[in-house]
Amino acid sequence: MSDIRIQNLQKPVAVAEYLFRRLHQIGIRSIHGLPGDFNLVALDYIPKAGLKWVGSVNELNAAYAADGYARAKGISAIVTTFGVGELSALNGIAGAHAEHIPVVHIVGCPSTISQKNGMLLHHTLGNGDFHVFANMSVHVSCEVAKLTRPGEIAAQIDHALRECWVRSRPVYIWLPTDMVEKQVEGARLDAEIDLAEEENDNPEREDYVVNVVLRALNDAQRPVILVDACAIRHRVLGEVQDLIAKTGLPVYVTPMGKGAVDETSPTYGGVYTGSASPPAVAAGVEGADLVLSIGSLKSDFNTAGFSYHTSQLNTIDLHSTHCVVRYSEYPGVAMRGVLRKVTERVDASKLVRTPVAAVVNAVEENRDDSKTVTQAWFWPRFGEFLRSGDIVVTETGTANFGIWETKFPAGVTGLSQVFWGSIGWAVGAAQGAALAAKDLGLDERTILMVGDGSFQLTAQELSTMIRHKLRVTIFLINNDGFTIERWIHGMTAEYNDIARWNYTALPAAFGAATTGKQTWAKTFKIKTKDELEKLLKNKEFAQAKGMQFVELFMPKEDAPRGLRITTEIAAKNNARTE
Amino acid sequence: MSDIRIQNLQKPVAVAEYLFRRLHQIGIRSIHGLPGDFNLVALDYIPKAGLKWVGSVNELNAAYAADGYARAKGISAIVTTFGVGELSALNGIAGAHAEHIPVVHIVGCPSTISQKNGMLLHHTLGNGDFHVFANMSVHVSCEVAKLTRPGEIAAQIDHALRECWVRSRPVYIWLPTDMVEKQVEGARLDAEIDLAEEENDNPEREDYVVNVVLRALNDAQRPVILVDACAIRHRVLGEVQDLIAKTGLPVYVTPMGKGAVDETSPTYGGVYTGSASPPAVAAGVEGADLVLSIGSLKSDFNTAGFSYHTSQLNTIDLHSTHCVVRYSEYPGVAMRGVLRKVTERVDASKLVRTPVAAVVNAVEENRDDSKTVTQAWFWPRFGEFLRSGDIVVTETGTANFGIWETKFPAGVTGLSQVFWGSIGWAVGAAQGAALAAKDLGLDERTILMVGDGSFQLTAQELSTMIRHKLRVTIFLINNDGFTIERWIHGMTAEYNDIARWNYTALPAAFGAATTGKQTWAKTFKIKTKDELEKLLKNKEFAQAKGMQFVELFMPKEDAPRGLRITTEIAAKNNARTE
Repeated sequence: MSDIRIQNLQKPVAVAEYLFRRLHQIGIRSIHGLPGDFNLVALDYIPKAGLKWVGSVNELNAAYAADGYARAKGISAIVTTFGVGELSALNGIAGAHAEHIPVVHIVGCPSTISQKNGMLLHHTLGNGDFHVFANMSVHVSCEVAKLTRPGEIAAQIDHALRECWVRSRPVYIWLPTDMVEKQVEGARLDAEIDLAEEENDNPEREDYVVNVVLRALNDAQRPVILVDACAIRHRVLGEVQDLIAKTGLPVYVTPMGKGAVDETSPTYGGVYTGSASPPAVAAGVEGADLVLSIGSLKSDFNTAGFSYHTSQLNTIDLHSTHCVVRYSEYPGVAMRGVLRKVTERVDASKLVRTPVAAVVNAVEENRDDSKTVTQAWFWPRFGEFLRSGDIVVTETGTANFGIWETKFPAGVTGLSQVFWGSIGWAVGAAQGAALAAKDLGLDERTILMVGDGSFQLTAQELSTMIRHKLRVTIFLINNDGFTIERWIHGMTAEYNDIARWNYTALPAAFGAATTGKQTWAKTFKIKTKDELEKLLKNKEFAQAKGMQFVELFMPKEDAPRGLRITTEIAAKNNARTE
Repeated sequence: MSDIRIQNLQKPVAVAEYLFRRLHQIGIRSIHGLPGDFNLVALDYIPKAGLKWVGSVNELNAAYAADGYARAKGISAIVTTFGVGELSALNGIAGAHAEHIPVVHIVGCPSTISQKNGMLLHHTLGNGDFHVFANMSVHVSCEVAKLTRPGEIAAQIDHALRECWVRSRPVYIWLPTDMVEKQVEGARLDAEIDLAEEENDNPEREDYVVNVVLRALNDAQRPVILVDACAIRHRVLGEVQDLIAKTGLPVYVTPMGKGAVDETSPTYGGVYTGSASPPAVAAGVEGADLVLSIGSLKSDFNTAGFSYHTSQLNTIDLHSTHCVVRYSEYPGVAMRGVLRKVTERVDASKLVRTPVAAVVNAVEENRDDSKTVTQAWFWPRFGEFLRSGDIVVTETGTANFGIWETKFPAGVTGLSQVFWGSIGWAVGAAQGAALAAKDLGLDERTILMVGDGSFQLTAQELSTMIRHKLRVTIFLINNDGFTIERWIHGMTAEYNDIARWNYTALPAAFGAATTGKQTWAKTFKIKTKDELEKLLKNKEFAQAKGMQFVELFMPKEDAPRGLRITTEIAAKNNARTE
């Protein structure tokens, strides 16, 4: 059978070649992952497809890095090996699923023959079940493609990659060793996969929603726009930008929406975080009689512990799969088409535009008399250091809350994992994002803000940054342990302490030249405001060539305002007994 | 309801106190894991129960370490947090499941109230399904206990811990935040959990099997004993020792059985690995007309690629759940009782005892003229360095195959993960094993043999060794990449290369004092046989106080004989297309 099929192929190519050429076509240039004996032959096809092998240090880091790469470049891929490799990556993939990140996870697995024979192979559980790990991944993937029949494989791959992109979620591709070099129809590669975003299929229904939205906007006395995570994830930032430009309405972002809009615009009002919002922001959003919410993801840490003071009666929710206007639901009507038509049809002159209080980096206002670098002072000051083109990656912990106080220049990309909140993510994600920038031909700075506790989980990702000479500036916030946990429970508890490392010794240990003519990584220890000022004003530091590793000491029990409020609510939730 | 129940409790204790006191009772003294907001309150009860918190650097390392701790001390526990933490640990737990290691995995999860309300909490997938991660763990646990009803919790904990011990597999305990301090009956703690090994319930049936075995032994002209993994895991080494002592039969081990028997005994014949066996071992086992196989686990890497040349017609298989004599199967008859009765009833004078060739560390025979440290020379030489009490942890890669050539002194414990084969495991496992030795009050050496490729995955576990001042000597085999993968496929492929680190800088970077009076970690770079000889003969080095980190350079493409043979067969299996 298979021989006959091969003879009928116009341009026979190996399955692995087909897969990797497709990945190249959809914009991927680097593949994260680790070798394992069930994927080795497939890896031979990576350079042939014009792709670069990253050679990650472990699978969890690889998954985090793939997540970061996808956030910065649109989509990414990771290759692991059956059982051991894929399970190590699982938390990272689950995070991508929760946060709507398109990551292609390719798992090299035992041959279909070994499977049929139920062989007692390494990396199995010993029970003859070769599907057990794939079945786990079903729950964190929007598509699982098991490539076991050559005649179907090309179509399976195309479908999976389209699903990955359109749903903006991970897909899982299961590649048995004996399928890697089976021949499939290469002629299909002449036409790229259709990744066009889906249009709403019923224009009349879409128009109806558009009219409801327009009427609400026109009737409102204080309408505002609130931009959240899924506006970024489902790629409607162009549409959002057009809407803001045409309407001139006040625009706010959530923590997960940070970086989605131009924060230097006069209509930008700041970060809305319910009870944790600055007074002017709270007044702006909560005083509105209409909140046009785009792509919301109202998780606890994205809402300062579900502390919104807004009413559904005053809210329009536009989502990637449906819209809700007050309590009217419109399943199947996606936000993209609605946004486009609203922008096209709105008569801006009829809208009431309330001026917003200017958003500034409140550096002087937060300066205290101490030499110490405090959270309150640092984050606005950090904002003044940023410039257009920067990619800023913030970790769960003080950084993800502190960044609320940082005003971005135009053109800054902010990456964070506020919803899934897996500590250690940011170190991998920064590597992936910096690599994506390099693959895009951008000579931009990637800046990682990470706490010492989180950093320890994935520290060796510095090695991958060094190996690929990525331009990453790392601010390692040394506050002697898990400060976010301390604020939830156990301020002085031993379990919130961590081992004390000589952090600035790590770049050299992980292979970077830190002295001499070949110096590529520089390290700094910063303990005072003055030292930090000097560093941030240093031109060479601002140029950020190579790796810059800044160990930034901050007080153990100091936390950004937003973190204090959010963790207080989280602790209460955890303690509720009825 | 719950108030009435509390009034009826004789000695009310909090759920967390009950759980941790039970862990102490069954022999656990240290708890691996990381804090997370869903487990923080539970962690408060760890010191109260007389337990030590390890404070692991990440969850995968913690799981590997718990695995190593259980191997050295009988059972272990790890605490993670919902979603992010437990998934990061999953590969380590799956390995413990595959390899029959009893690990108690406690997962702090959101309160039952948050669950009922379907709250959009951090660490969830956002779909309201709070059971999705526990459902993944079902496949790698012999028991899943979801603690949601106070009245049942004490019994659930007792049952889960007994299952963990008796089945020698991981159990998963799901602890919602609102259950942590619910009151349960503390009077139950006055009686310890019954961990007695199960007896075969039908003595007549057991006697029948014993008689079949005895008859076979008496009839055999060349009977031998072959000891494998499950003899260790299911705790019949005492019974095996008694059998060997009474019968005086030749005894061989498999790779996973290495360390199970006294290798200095005159009846010890060596490591049987099918086609990869030394000639004398092959002759001994394959020339036998009866192989009494105890606790076999015939996986690919444990049998040099399924290369046994033995016949089932000549084999008796004793397992933890059943026995097989030639082709006669005896389900439900476990090996322990059979072994005891066989030893009790066998008339040793009637057995034919074939002398075995002496097993020696063939150091001189494997010495070549080069200065280079070769695999062939190293492993026997390493054997001469070992002494009674040592715990030797070998990693998947050259170490797991090289150790076949190492003869252990009496009283050496060998740990390896030959079946699951997750690289990086050994670094965590060595930490856990060394901590177990310390908890047991033993002042013994733990020696880790790990390749550079594997080491990079879990390198920061050095930090935990340093934090707890564990006595670990590390031989980091620097052979410039994944040599085991090179031998399977891609000898010079880029994907088998790794980043070049300054390994000996790591102990200091991870916080160890390496100079001055407080010196606690010492590092060495060894490039020649002479340097290694000098080091191994150094008395201070042999004493191994503190951490000793030896970077041992070996040629990139050099591999132990067993690895070459096994990987050749693995490559063929992967390449088979029909």
